[in-house]
Amino acid sequence: MSTDSATPSRSRNVPIRRIQDGRDGATDDHVAIEEPLEIRMGFEAATGRDEKAISVTMRTPANDAELAVGFLFTEGILASPNDVIEVWHRSPPVPGDANLRNVIRVDLRAGTNIDFGKLDRHFYTTSSCGVCGKTSLDALQAQSLFTAAIADSPFRIDAETIIDLPTRLEEQQKIFGQTGGLHATGLFDNSGNMEVVREDVGRHNAMDKLIGRLFLDDKLPASNKGILVSGRASFELVQKVAMAGAPMLAAVGAPSSLAVDVAREFGITLIGFLRNGRFNIYSAGERVQS
Amino acid sequence: MSTDSATPSRSRNVPIRRIQDGRDGATDDHVAIEEPLEIRMGFEAATGRDEKAISVTMRTPANDAELAVGFLFTEGILASPNDVIEVWHRSPPVPGDANLRNVIRVDLRAGTNIDFGKLDRHFYTTSSCGVCGKTSLDALQAQSLFTAAIADSPFRIDAETIIDLPTRLEEQQKIFGQTGGLHATGLFDNSGNMEVVREDVGRHNAMDKLIGRLFLDDKLPASNKGILVSGRASFELVQKVAMAGAPMLAAVGAPSSLAVDVAREFGITLIGFLRNGRFNIYSAGERVQS
Repeated sequence: MSTDSATPSRSRNVPIRRIQDGRDGATDDHVAIEEPLEIRMGFEAATGRDEKAISVTMRTPANDAELAVGFLFTEGILASPNDVIEVWHRSPPVPGDANLRNVIRVDLRAGTNIDFGKLDRHFYTTSSCGVCGKTSLDALQAQSLFTAAIADSPFRIDAETIIDLPTRLEEQQKIFGQTGGLHATGLFDNSGNMEVVREDVGRHNAMDKLIGRLFLDDKLPASNKGILVSGRASFELVQKVAMAGAPMLAAVGAPSSLAVDVAREFGITLIGFLRNGRFNIYSAGERVQS
Repeated sequence: MSTDSATPSRSRNVPIRRIQDGRDGATDDHVAIEEPLEIRMGFEAATGRDEKAISVTMRTPANDAELAVGFLFTEGILASPNDVIEVWHRSPPVPGDANLRNVIRVDLRAGTNIDFGKLDRHFYTTSSCGVCGKTSLDALQAQSLFTAAIADSPFRIDAETIIDLPTRLEEQQKIFGQTGGLHATGLFDNSGNMEVVREDVGRHNAMDKLIGRLFLDDKLPASNKGILVSGRASFELVQKVAMAGAPMLAAVGAPSSLAVDVAREFGITLIGFLRNGRFNIYSAGERVQS
């Protein structure tokens, strides 16, 4: 399994003007890098190896292999890490040429069952945002492989541990040196340890990167872990958590109505407004011990 | 032109558990409503009137007609309000049945030039997020009708007026009674008046609603106005501002690298981190007078 050979910068220095306290001066600012990533799938066809462009997502470079397989998994195309034989990242002949590093291809094992009808109906019209590119309402519902793993999960966690989670996520983020422009997603155990942290300008990408890492390590379902996001909890994020088989999603920001509905449907514990020493529990509260 | 006959609720009451200061109690919380909207386009075909499902976006109900035409305009399909003859919102036979109100159709005037090749190549694989559903990198670049309107814009604004904008946006938002879960977008003049404010769980939808309103009122290009967003400035938001012909985008949050690049390309003044009495100018700073 190939992965990214080098970690590209997550931010770029740009010259700016800053207006502050009546002063107006030239300075520099770090901005989070946002670049398109074209995700292709390679597969065995009757005529030999073939490939298809599947989607383009705007992402922060880094962990692109995780992002690509995480996306394909949470979209229901990949079922097992055994389906993936190699991940190829197009290598820029000129170092630093961003456009050339922005294509990645996930090669599937010969014999992997690909539902091309599903691809045409659903996948080609979907997006990394989970729903917004779909052309009909019918295509919205995720089919999680791990509904039983969530329902039967023994995961329990103390309220005090939950309250501490955002601080632990921020500590991990500081290691990378932040721009203030990245969403973060963290996998935690019931002691509050942040086991995996991923970042991106797109919240769905940060989630796909984390789930892609677990997928590649064959650690799904994540039925004894929770997932923390630095922003709001939308429908699509709850769906991705359901796909990963995790029994808890905690968000620093607000949940939406449909996020609450989907969390209740799957029995996922949904926590929102986790900040300033407090939080709300929107569903499956039995996993929280106060 | 039909519009939404009634303004649906933007939030819903849900029973929750709240953990705060060591207390653990049952209470209620308002969550922002997030529901899918299927956007269809009606047009004249050789065989009579026909329609196509174009996209599904997750949105907060309200201003759906604006959202639909704003989306079709910022995606480059509609060019003039004269192209639109009617907007139809599917009416629920059972009041309050959300699923049934979640389809809207924009009917185009007979003779409106629709590039079906473009629809197939680009539109069916795009999304309301602007980019994330596109299947190749080539489809990313927006073609604004109003590049000259931006370049020649006489718009100038004082730094002190800019610093006041977020407060003015919040004042308008308070009128609706907020959940903490909605993004807001506001159109402002160079005196800082918030002329149009729109909200949504999706930042791109809030922008499309605002631009859709201007489109329906035949007020594009917005070449003597600025647009404020309550969150971060991404590539897609700058692209939509370029489509609307507005010379300034101000964001309470951080811009991404590609947002800066696109703003510079179009000569749009991009302002970020507009909060706590300060802001940064990333491009076209000549429009800001300090």
